[in-house]
Amino acid sequence: MTHTDPDPTDRSHSVRLDAQDPLAALRHEFVLPAGVIYLDGNSLGALPRATAERVDRVVRAEWGVDLIRSWNSAGWVDLAQRIGDKIAPLVGAGPGQLIVSDSTTVNLYKVLNSAIALAPGADPARRVIVSERSNFPTDLYIADSVARAHGWSLELVETEALAGPLDPRTGILMLTHVNYRTGRMHDMTALTRAAHAAGALAVWDLAHSAGAVPVDLIGSQADFAVGCGYKYLNGGPGAPAFVWAHPRHTQRMDQEQLRQPLSGWFGHAAPFEFTHDYRPAAGIRRFACGTPPMLSMAALECGVDVFERTAGHGGIAALRTKSIALCELFITLVESRCTGHGLQLVTPRDAAQRGSQVSLAHPHGHAIMQALIERGVIGDFRAGTPDGQGESGHLLRFGFTPLYTRYTDVWDAVQHLVDVMDSGVWREARFAQRHAVT
Amino acid sequence: MTHTDPDPTDRSHSVRLDAQDPLAALRHEFVLPAGVIYLDGNSLGALPRATAERVDRVVRAEWGVDLIRSWNSAGWVDLAQRIGDKIAPLVGAGPGQLIVSDSTTVNLYKVLNSAIALAPGADPARRVIVSERSNFPTDLYIADSVARAHGWSLELVETEALAGPLDPRTGILMLTHVNYRTGRMHDMTALTRAAHAAGALAVWDLAHSAGAVPVDLIGSQADFAVGCGYKYLNGGPGAPAFVWAHPRHTQRMDQEQLRQPLSGWFGHAAPFEFTHDYRPAAGIRRFACGTPPMLSMAALECGVDVFERTAGHGGIAALRTKSIALCELFITLVESRCTGHGLQLVTPRDAAQRGSQVSLAHPHGHAIMQALIERGVIGDFRAGTPDGQGESGHLLRFGFTPLYTRYTDVWDAVQHLVDVMDSGVWREARFAQRHAVT
Repeated sequence: MTHTDPDPTDRSHSVRLDAQDPLAALRHEFVLPAGVIYLDGNSLGALPRATAERVDRVVRAEWGVDLIRSWNSAGWVDLAQRIGDKIAPLVGAGPGQLIVSDSTTVNLYKVLNSAIALAPGADPARRVIVSERSNFPTDLYIADSVARAHGWSLELVETEALAGPLDPRTGILMLTHVNYRTGRMHDMTALTRAAHAAGALAVWDLAHSAGAVPVDLIGSQADFAVGCGYKYLNGGPGAPAFVWAHPRHTQRMDQEQLRQPLSGWFGHAAPFEFTHDYRPAAGIRRFACGTPPMLSMAALECGVDVFERTAGHGGIAALRTKSIALCELFITLVESRCTGHGLQLVTPRDAAQRGSQVSLAHPHGHAIMQALIERGVIGDFRAGTPDGQGESGHLLRFGFTPLYTRYTDVWDAVQHLVDVMDSGVWREARFAQRHAVT
Repeated sequence: MTHTDPDPTDRSHSVRLDAQDPLAALRHEFVLPAGVIYLDGNSLGALPRATAERVDRVVRAEWGVDLIRSWNSAGWVDLAQRIGDKIAPLVGAGPGQLIVSDSTTVNLYKVLNSAIALAPGADPARRVIVSERSNFPTDLYIADSVARAHGWSLELVETEALAGPLDPRTGILMLTHVNYRTGRMHDMTALTRAAHAAGALAVWDLAHSAGAVPVDLIGSQADFAVGCGYKYLNGGPGAPAFVWAHPRHTQRMDQEQLRQPLSGWFGHAAPFEFTHDYRPAAGIRRFACGTPPMLSMAALECGVDVFERTAGHGGIAALRTKSIALCELFITLVESRCTGHGLQLVTPRDAAQRGSQVSLAHPHGHAIMQALIERGVIGDFRAGTPDGQGESGHLLRFGFTPLYTRYTDVWDAVQHLVDVMDSGVWREARFAQRHAVT
């Protein structure tokens, strides 16, 4: 615990923390439903206050009235780069280095193909993509697909093995910075250095990092990165994703006229010249592909714009400080108030190894989460995967978004958890029901 | 001309056609700005009346209030398939055969890779993708990219050559059904048959067809198709695209557990089981990839829903009849009223070879279009490509969307064109200015 308050189990402690919170006003940038404690911003961020009006303007005025002219007059044609330039400082990237495009999955496909083209691993003895067994599935699916197509292979290692030396056959180390299940955060600088020392490139997925924890892509010397717009960036359901490449790679791609395989017209040097031959745009813009979905793009920009309002309050560093405090309060309260119910902390206790999420394992995690949701505490649930994580792999996930989560939300959420566990209400049959998306 | 009216150059003729138009009421399904004659629905379709409210509901209620729960409660998780099932009858596909996903460019990448995996052209002597030189550039960029990756090559032929026998090395014939520049429409059935007779697969881009002309994917025995959501389907700027595969291919992919290369979690058989191993969903759903952008998806559904309201008015056949009549009226009026100004009809005069667009060539096409736009007649302009089409390749494009374009719009547009040409106003310096998107 970093707090000195004598009794965090007393709600007044949390009330005081809220009153002293320099970021408290940012909550008003969001529309949050009454009666809900929303702890699932790690899956779908909340709605920024500015978004509905902005999207409505895009629909009614830019599309409805100005129609095709809005490509110029409303700046649609540059929006992907404009939002990219706003995301860049949140992840330690420079202007013009990061662009919004497609989904995280599609962007990962682009950068893995590019990494293979650029990797020292053109050496046939080192054609292995190494990743973490508990990485987000779509990352593993895409890595496997790319590896197969190039005569490479994907090898999965346990989290603990990443502390040791890299397999000398590694050509690419592909990791998600903050694990979606456990909330564990990797040391991007150390692992990138280890990859480089082993002659490999480092590709990072920032899905659970961007907007939640400080990231220093340039400082860590990372090679490629992708990230998600709809989690901590609050861009709306299925918001477009982003892609970044270190300038040393885009410069080489410029010099050698290298394309990424999804060489669509928006990644062309001059898309509106409609030439037959593909000529990649300079820099990161070659990672754009087809026409971006403007309604969803506009919503993403509203989500990203909220971060500009953190500048006077300490920016991402202050967000991180609050995020750690929220997570620690949650852990402290769960450990002191929910004993004896078999809830097990899965997220690292060391804040330096943690993102902005806390996961608890419980064999009946799904039913417990359903009971919490019925009470208005919205986290989510991830089942244990079939290959060995078994029952203890059933996770309740709680995401803490420092932009809008209050200390009293944490306290109240734990109170509900205490009630659910102490009463055993989660054993009621209705909580066993599974939905398409759990 | 199919009309019997003695004098189409008389505006009262067009007034009568509007009065008799069985589809006239459909115009009220759209919001169209005052003082504008919008003839660019082939580039960006107009705003349906239902869209703004629907998108606002998705933002404020589904996202803002129900938050993550909307994946189940609002049906987000099935939306891509639900819209796909609504598009399917517009292009002669069956239910469950077509899905909304990504951009046209990305979908083309998926189907070309799949076609190569399935093509008889595994024979090294027939590893050629044949396409049309004037095909839309992004299609050619992607085909070239896919071809290179597989040791195939892309060969471009002139439009006229497609009437002759296919090069026996052809493994895939990839065409856009209606050409984006000229509006020329291919005979999908005949060319698919020719491809099959030559031992090749036929891949079709329906970007300028879906919602504009009848398409019979199953009847023509086509192999794969992709299409665009933001043109005649009126899905909004950058709306997600669609992808279709003939069931004979998805069945074989099911049996052999074939993946398309962009094997993301939304194309997994059970995405929310979060398993490490990719297991492709059965049927067309394996062509889904990442999380779809829900705001843009919702807008697309509104666009597609308009077509359900054509059912009582003769459906797509009636739309086609009106589309032909609009194009013929335009051609007749231009040819009778704009003589001597060097405007040259590029679109085929035979309606059976034409989509829902008419293109006119003029060396100063850009300035003429700018002068028309200043007067509220919005078409667009495509420059001649650098390799040989030269000045005569400068095209003014006029798209005629039978859902909302009136005969009097056509008459009035031509009147403006007559005024612009007769006055020579287009020679004024301000019309020479080029924008990012022309």
